[in-house]
Amino acid sequence: MNILFTCAGRRNYLLDYFREAMRGSGKIIAIDSHIMAPALAVADLSIVVPSVNHPGYLATIKEIIRDHAVDAVVCLNDLELPLLSKHKGELEKLGARLFVSNSETIDIAFDKWKTYAFFKSLNIESPQTFLTIDEACSAIDLGKMDYPVILKPRWGTASLGILEAHDEGELILCYRLLKLQLSRSVLKETNQIDIEKCILIQEKIKGAEYGMDILNDLNGVYQKSFVRKKVAMRSGETDKALTVVNSYFLDLGKKIGQATGHVGNMDCDFLVRRGKVYLLEMNPRFGGGYPFTHEAGVNIPAIYLAWMRGEVDITQYMNYTPNLTFVKYDKILKINTESYLKKSSDANLVCCQE
Amino acid sequence: MNILFTCAGRRNYLLDYFREAMRGSGKIIAIDSHIMAPALAVADLSIVVPSVNHPGYLATIKEIIRDHAVDAVVCLNDLELPLLSKHKGELEKLGARLFVSNSETIDIAFDKWKTYAFFKSLNIESPQTFLTIDEACSAIDLGKMDYPVILKPRWGTASLGILEAHDEGELILCYRLLKLQLSRSVLKETNQIDIEKCILIQEKIKGAEYGMDILNDLNGVYQKSFVRKKVAMRSGETDKALTVVNSYFLDLGKKIGQATGHVGNMDCDFLVRRGKVYLLEMNPRFGGGYPFTHEAGVNIPAIYLAWMRGEVDITQYMNYTPNLTFVKYDKILKINTESYLKKSSDANLVCCQE
Repeated sequence: MNILFTCAGRRNYLLDYFREAMRGSGKIIAIDSHIMAPALAVADLSIVVPSVNHPGYLATIKEIIRDHAVDAVVCLNDLELPLLSKHKGELEKLGARLFVSNSETIDIAFDKWKTYAFFKSLNIESPQTFLTIDEACSAIDLGKMDYPVILKPRWGTASLGILEAHDEGELILCYRLLKLQLSRSVLKETNQIDIEKCILIQEKIKGAEYGMDILNDLNGVYQKSFVRKKVAMRSGETDKALTVVNSYFLDLGKKIGQATGHVGNMDCDFLVRRGKVYLLEMNPRFGGGYPFTHEAGVNIPAIYLAWMRGEVDITQYMNYTPNLTFVKYDKILKINTESYLKKSSDANLVCCQE
Repeated sequence: MNILFTCAGRRNYLLDYFREAMRGSGKIIAIDSHIMAPALAVADLSIVVPSVNHPGYLATIKEIIRDHAVDAVVCLNDLELPLLSKHKGELEKLGARLFVSNSETIDIAFDKWKTYAFFKSLNIESPQTFLTIDEACSAIDLGKMDYPVILKPRWGTASLGILEAHDEGELILCYRLLKLQLSRSVLKETNQIDIEKCILIQEKIKGAEYGMDILNDLNGVYQKSFVRKKVAMRSGETDKALTVVNSYFLDLGKKIGQATGHVGNMDCDFLVRRGKVYLLEMNPRFGGGYPFTHEAGVNIPAIYLAWMRGEVDITQYMNYTPNLTFVKYDKILKINTESYLKKSSDANLVCCQE
């Protein structure tokens, strides 16, 4: 079984987990638009490809699936999920199973305003969120919300451009600056959909942060959730966390997983303040918090492989142990790019999200 | 020989390099104010201490030096360098050698306005820098500087609060916001020295970024420099780099190392645009770029140990190979804090810079 990881970035651990689960049968193929992506250094076959926004991206993926007999595709980048979901049928006809969710879930997850509405529709609490300064200020004037508030791009990834305002003056400053920054950022294209409604103003909930992996099967049927309490963040990813088992959280995961019908693993963030849970966002892919789930006894790569083989009983792969603490730390790796296949003319210039 | 690492943070690699150089003789002692610091998980003795700003910090260091027969102290945090430098004589009387520079160099490095003046005094080019909006705007009006400009805290660490402005309107927005943020930040105390002159407005040099380790001996005598071209940054640290040997850069390192007379390794950043070099900043401690130097054939931990033993010839430890590319990637580690010594009452609340 050959598995393709798109936008492999720096997820060396995930490639290692899959390699272990594959037990020597099949190849790990990693692609990235940046020749220096660390994960390219640990794959069996590494291919430098055009960036996700490049018109040739989809054709390159197809070529790789065909040329290298790819059996499964694991997508790791928010920016490519809409494209791959849209063309899922087409790509699967080439013989590869795509671990990519339905377009509706991907759209809800990528647009944080829709995420807010989605949680509301499920009667799940979420921090109060507004699309304009006027609405946010009137909620504050009416005593429904307090400073500080968070300002963030409606369509965002990896904590790009998050600001915090402590009074109306700062709110206006932050709003104007964020709008300027967004008009220049990599998210430009996406945000220009509606430039006047591209910034979310959100109540800051001062509570403990949690992450959750919500696992559905290949048909989008809910399986189980795995929760961790975040102790520290770094570059928008969980850096230190404590594993947690709590039936209330698990019921929430079930409610969300059943409603989205997403495929495979979905990363989800929430806050807890005074016993009340506030859902923040969802990312229908492996998130930076997955290693915490894995090290605590859950083997989602092995589960994916079991499903691909048609197996149904996955209980042996889900021995989640609570009350374990894990931290991430840096290792360093020598890169030799000579062995990489190059399918991009500007491999050094464009940089995949990491 | 027992070595103490203060504010050990996430520098697991540095502890590993020292452990290797020590060849089983002596202990690696790591301290941090945050019980979850990854480096605490890999030391022989791990101690949770008060934060650098706590009045009991210095007394705790003294106690540890005495109680655990510490022979050398390696300091890893900008915020503690002034304190440890000031009390260097006192601490060394307890029997430990401190790898900490003179107060003047630490002061110049920590205050980026002084850094700018320092480079100027050495006739070393540096990006044009201003302390007020008026001065910056008049330089732009006179055609001496162009947008975009960078705004950053005069006293800053790990790329906290860096903004970029593309016109006068954005410059004013950024300046006001940064001032508000600084008035609330961890750097508050430091920056209140002169709140009207706490933000630097700096020409943005669009060039290739470089890092350099400038090595002086224990008496501040220049030894050698090791240069890397940065390919990517993450959380203010070098994430991907290519090793470089270039005599012009090495002459610059020599000029700086001779002028500072710093002790041990000093991290230094510069930019190159159209063949011209622009010095940015210096950090008189091991920086996040050191693993690149080490993996390319230079063993500064072994050099420190040789100097401690009174050896003079260190050439065997300096086989720097150019044209090698290295990247950092994440690993995950289980934390068991039960074995840690606790010398802080609020170990979970305060967080050391990482």
